[in-house]
Amino acid sequence: MNRKIRMGMVGGGIGAFIGNVHRMAAAIDGKIELVCGAFSSDPQKSQESGKQLFLPENRVYNSFEEMILKEKELPEGERMDFVSIVTPNHMHFPPAKMALQHGFHVVCDKPLCFSMEEALELEALVKKTGLVFALTHNYTGYPMVKQAKHMIASGELGKIRKIVVEYPQGWLHQLVEATNQKQAAWRTDPKRSGIAGAMGDIGTHAENLAEYMTGLKITKMCAQISIMVEGRQLDDDGNVLLEFENGAKGVLHASQISAGEENSLNIRVYGEKGGLEWHQMEPNTLIVKWQDAPSQIYRTGKGDLCEAASAHTRIPAGHPEGYLEAFANIYRNAAFAIAAHMEGKKADALYDFPSVEDGVRGMNFVNKVIESGLAEQKWVEV
Amino acid sequence: MNRKIRMGMVGGGIGAFIGNVHRMAAAIDGKIELVCGAFSSDPQKSQESGKQLFLPENRVYNSFEEMILKEKELPEGERMDFVSIVTPNHMHFPPAKMALQHGFHVVCDKPLCFSMEEALELEALVKKTGLVFALTHNYTGYPMVKQAKHMIASGELGKIRKIVVEYPQGWLHQLVEATNQKQAAWRTDPKRSGIAGAMGDIGTHAENLAEYMTGLKITKMCAQISIMVEGRQLDDDGNVLLEFENGAKGVLHASQISAGEENSLNIRVYGEKGGLEWHQMEPNTLIVKWQDAPSQIYRTGKGDLCEAASAHTRIPAGHPEGYLEAFANIYRNAAFAIAAHMEGKKADALYDFPSVEDGVRGMNFVNKVIESGLAEQKWVEV
Amino acid sequence: MNRKIRMGMVGGGIGAFIGNVHRMAAAIDGKIELVCGAFSSDPQKSQESGKQLFLPENRVYNSFEEMILKEKELPEGERMDFVSIVTPNHMHFPPAKMALQHGFHVVCDKPLCFSMEEALELEALVKKTGLVFALTHNYTGYPMVKQAKHMIASGELGKIRKIVVEYPQGWLHQLVEATNQKQAAWRTDPKRSGIAGAMGDIGTHAENLAEYMTGLKITKMCAQISIMVEGRQLDDDGNVLLEFENGAKGVLHASQISAGEENSLNIRVYGEKGGLEWHQMEPNTLIVKWQDAPSQIYRTGKGDLCEAASAHTRIPAGHPEGYLEAFANIYRNAAFAIAAHMEGKKADALYDFPSVEDGVRGMNFVNKVIESGLAEQKWVEV
Amino acid sequence: MNRKIRMGMVGGGIGAFIGNVHRMAAAIDGKIELVCGAFSSDPQKSQESGKQLFLPENRVYNSFEEMILKEKELPEGERMDFVSIVTPNHMHFPPAKMALQHGFHVVCDKPLCFSMEEALELEALVKKTGLVFALTHNYTGYPMVKQAKHMIASGELGKIRKIVVEYPQGWLHQLVEATNQKQAAWRTDPKRSGIAGAMGDIGTHAENLAEYMTGLKITKMCAQISIMVEGRQLDDDGNVLLEFENGAKGVLHASQISAGEENSLNIRVYGEKGGLEWHQMEPNTLIVKWQDAPSQIYRTGKGDLCEAASAHTRIPAGHPEGYLEAFANIYRNAAFAIAAHMEGKKADALYDFPSVEDGVRGMNFVNKVIESGLAEQKWVEV
Repeated sequence: MNRKIRMGMVGGGIGAFIGNVHRMAAAIDGKIELVCGAFSSDPQKSQESGKQLFLPENRVYNSFEEMILKEKELPEGERMDFVSIVTPNHMHFPPAKMALQHGFHVVCDKPLCFSMEEALELEALVKKTGLVFALTHNYTGYPMVKQAKHMIASGELGKIRKIVVEYPQGWLHQLVEATNQKQAAWRTDPKRSGIAGAMGDIGTHAENLAEYMTGLKITKMCAQISIMVEGRQLDDDGNVLLEFENGAKGVLHASQISAGEENSLNIRVYGEKGGLEWHQMEPNTLIVKWQDAPSQIYRTGKGDLCEAASAHTRIPAGHPEGYLEAFANIYRNAAFAIAAHMEGKKADALYDFPSVEDGVRGMNFVNKVIESGLAEQKWVEV
Repeated sequence: MNRKIRMGMVGGGIGAFIGNVHRMAAAIDGKIELVCGAFSSDPQKSQESGKQLFLPENRVYNSFEEMILKEKELPEGERMDFVSIVTPNHMHFPPAKMALQHGFHVVCDKPLCFSMEEALELEALVKKTGLVFALTHNYTGYPMVKQAKHMIASGELGKIRKIVVEYPQGWLHQLVEATNQKQAAWRTDPKRSGIAGAMGDIGTHAENLAEYMTGLKITKMCAQISIMVEGRQLDDDGNVLLEFENGAKGVLHASQISAGEENSLNIRVYGEKGGLEWHQMEPNTLIVKWQDAPSQIYRTGKGDLCEAASAHTRIPAGHPEGYLEAFANIYRNAAFAIAAHMEGKKADALYDFPSVEDGVRGMNFVNKVIESGLAEQKWVEV
Repeated sequence: MNRKIRMGMVGGGIGAFIGNVHRMAAAIDGKIELVCGAFSSDPQKSQESGKQLFLPENRVYNSFEEMILKEKELPEGERMDFVSIVTPNHMHFPPAKMALQHGFHVVCDKPLCFSMEEALELEALVKKTGLVFALTHNYTGYPMVKQAKHMIASGELGKIRKIVVEYPQGWLHQLVEATNQKQAAWRTDPKRSGIAGAMGDIGTHAENLAEYMTGLKITKMCAQISIMVEGRQLDDDGNVLLEFENGAKGVLHASQISAGEENSLNIRVYGEKGGLEWHQMEPNTLIVKWQDAPSQIYRTGKGDLCEAASAHTRIPAGHPEGYLEAFANIYRNAAFAIAAHMEGKKADALYDFPSVEDGVRGMNFVNKVIESGLAEQKWVEV
Repeated sequence: MNRKIRMGMVGGGIGAFIGNVHRMAAAIDGKIELVCGAFSSDPQKSQESGKQLFLPENRVYNSFEEMILKEKELPEGERMDFVSIVTPNHMHFPPAKMALQHGFHVVCDKPLCFSMEEALELEALVKKTGLVFALTHNYTGYPMVKQAKHMIASGELGKIRKIVVEYPQGWLHQLVEATNQKQAAWRTDPKRSGIAGAMGDIGTHAENLAEYMTGLKITKMCAQISIMVEGRQLDDDGNVLLEFENGAKGVLHASQISAGEENSLNIRVYGEKGGLEWHQMEPNTLIVKWQDAPSQIYRTGKGDLCEAASAHTRIPAGHPEGYLEAFANIYRNAAFAIAAHMEGKKADALYDFPSVEDGVRGMNFVNKVIESGLAEQKWVEV
């Protein structure tokens, strides 16, 4: 491509946390340009947001429908190439569907959408249109996650036997949604968030990370799902026993009431020969453990890492890359895939990103985990 | 007391791991003296062990029965005051019972014994005789465990909502028992270990730690119990969902096939106001976490700790106390209680140690966790 | 400002490490736009670089002179607003001087330039023109460095007594410059790097960090400067005793031959009441230590941090911000200052960045540390 | 030997910190028995101490002279075999000399004595008598220190180039000696401590550790020695540049005013091929670093360690051994050497301990570092 890929954004107006994250992630590598947006359902707020982002007034829209229709009329190279969707969960599906129907690629925040029906419809539409669809399960963008995935896939740990994946947070340890905290309000509201709270918001990240890193699918689960804070409508804590397709066992727990925890997503994987451990809050370190030899500390950018780890690293070892860089890896890879699509080429598998299929799996996980939480029998098949 | 408390040992002959641990733990504080032993069922090995321990020949016995009967005939002050039992699980009950029946106090390795029936019989016997009975759930001897218990009990974390306790090991990630590894051999043998493997050996430590630290009893559990290594007869991995008496939820997992792990017992407890975290492998550090304030690092010997933490600390902060010192705390406290008993006084509650009741709870945990592992319904009441 | 600030770049062509870092740092916050560049003294390479960066051909220049002169002719709002200089040390001064003389603001990589004479000339020129000049001592851009500076300035640690600052690297532990490693080649070449190697490249970062964080100036030093790798022309290791203006003592050591180290810049500061510790490789953590109370772990984005820390944080606690974000803080703050300059306002002191004066101090540090390394007397006054 | 080695103690009465440490260290392994003591220059306090230690009255003495003379009259096997000296520095020499003169082996706390003259006299006496003399530079007793020493000696890191050794403490950050803190009182008193404060008390530990681990002698030093707390008579902080016999450079700093630090002795050693790092406060971990490969975490008891590391480890990996166990290694090894001496055998070099020669080197270090601190020229030869 001889130009940047052009992005239009749905949601992410002034004061939104995740919209700004998406914009920074898209900007870092200089491959993507924000050209338009429908930043809010409130036209004035959308305009004000566009102004702060230095967009021309005529590229700031009052609704995603308007944006898609008007941009469609612009010439290729001027109009947006893809839509970035950063709204609450219940507002993922409508713009995603319409964008795909009008020939725009899509980058969408997770979880994929609000219900399994929507998820399957999007999956079908992506398949039918052949357009690029990237889901921002951003944690898989970290280089050390790629390294771990590579080591497991190449059998260095032997057959995998046990997986422990955790995502503890503490920010909802009180009834924050009763104040005017915008992030908390929609995440704890079944109308906007869906049937799950913590399990949908962060449990799916844990599920996605475990399946991505190990290459193993969850086949059975047994969940204990709780609402710990009085007055809350959706789960804020959950503990799940897992079984994987190869017979490996595991534990997944996610929580928003683990007071004092930040975003302590972490995973441990044990195989017949060795184990490994990765923590999102110290993402440039991958600990590989052996029973009868010293543990090894793999570090982003250091030594002889796998091709995928190197391809997702920007700076030399010891200069920490963080959350935004991992997020940017998703955006950059989606941009590569969009560019390849434009040029009629196949996307390079090295530059991977979570897909609509991952999104469908995530929605299914949410449904099943809530089902299991309510069940009296031990196991629910996935 | 104007003399050391006198210890006789059952088991722990040459080459035994845990026997030597008990001897070192008993020796550190200069309050206990090893005066006799029946170190092995093999008389020659028992004699050889006694010799290496500088015991006179006439105080080295060929069986615990002989030891108890012969020592009983010696005058008080010369004969042993208590029996330390460091045999495999199936050999805890007979010497413990006989010792109590002959008026000797007992320090016994965990788990308490082989079956619930034995456990209840011992409990009754302790109650009847009024003798001191200490179970070496040694991890509760660490000063920072005492500090955590104190902070939870005094409400600093608020009502407890979630507990995560783990005990991963890796040493049985292969069929080590097929070699001549003595430690592995009896621990994986149902005849000597009982109905549980990992759950009995280390799962009970996790259970004991969680209940001790939080002061909360487990009321329900749902277990996934596995044998991961082909050819093994007892569980080597288990994951358990928990519910506690106050409604708190939790996860307990223990494993002997987590390749690369040493003895990574650890616990996290979250309350309405804050959380805390403790790791056995870095035992002098207690991390206390708050949602809107810096985390705090409590350290053995530093600052204004609770009375119980200080009473179990020997040296100034920054000079690490370890496993043997925590173990020694159990022995020293048992010695204090024995001395108090001799002097007709009540033992000082500050110097606590795990009791026969804790042992009964541990045996019940083992029974229930195995029952739950085999069950099809989700929850088993404890 | 109703538009992005426009950047022209000198140096940073294909394959350069630091040029890309500057571009990413400038891009993250969406306040700066790359509009032109003279990326290499090799015109073909400059053009090729510009193409990869999606710049129009007519804004890619063959020399910085050409760029400055041609851009000057463009109308305000189209022409670049500032020059970013990312060349080797000996090529900082010429473009910086010419840019200032033609009314362009400057962002310049560190160290400021090649000699003290150049440094003083630049300082005078900045003063005379009143233009914005930012030096990318990027490590001071981390939020936890701001927090530490604030706590020290507000007296929380009491009068400062001791400072230990370290910058160990290992990448030059062999004669890498004898291979075709471009980064090593110029850094170890006195003609391009100046009189110092490690001390100029990273010793100055350590000096800058110590003075910035504590607000104290170094007044005396005693240096041991070494070339450890045979065949090298400039120092690759140095250890320095320090005295600060308030009587505090200190140690600074920097090394490029500490095999196995990445970019382990770190600092410890001790006052009469307490101490603190910060590590660049785990930049979101600030450890504050008290003698008789638990240590505290301050974290980026968590709890009640100082205004400066919050103003340099983008995302919620537990989502690690890294090197690029700290670097971006320098760029964003320079952009704020340039915008204020354009609007005739005073720059907001909250959004600070290293200045030409800091650069002069850094050059003086380099001169004095090399002088001290060669001296026989103990102390050299700074 | 068919009996325990018999210890008499000088100093270490009630309330003394280090006396109790020595007793616990001597007791752990069951090879040494405390049989007598002169615990205080105050006869009543000595008697009371002996009583608490369960010693018979006739083996508790009012002075070390009395103890040595009276014990000498007892038959071998009943009388003490060696004297353990745990008094303040100025009281090391008299009992050590007299003990040696009367044929008793000696274990002595560090530093060796009060002056260089005393040190040389003791050295000569040890040589002349052929008796065992162990100095409790206890930190060299840690298994991971042995492992590091082995790896360096066997060339795994290549030729050593740089050594950084630190011993920061904070407990004297205020004028504690003005209160009735006994430990502080004698350590800051030139009459009892000698010419150095922090440098004698902990600087020598750092020096001993660096020389022991690397096998390299310090040849030159340049010291900055300070009294930071007003009213104090001896140094409480010092920073030293070092040169070693092979040309390696280094930094040693020790401090008792680094508020918030516990006993953070640590060392980093860098060779041509790799580096290593060890921290006393996490003593079971040895980090070995490579430039182009993952770092390795060696752990006490795990994997294939060197013979010396294994010979100084008691319990399986993951059960932390601490300060007392390292200290006990010195005692146990001294006991082995005494036993060998009694049996007319040569001591096994595997079971090493710091010698009187190490003590002489330590005294020389103290003298030279204070001389350098006062000097105007840069370097003082050692």
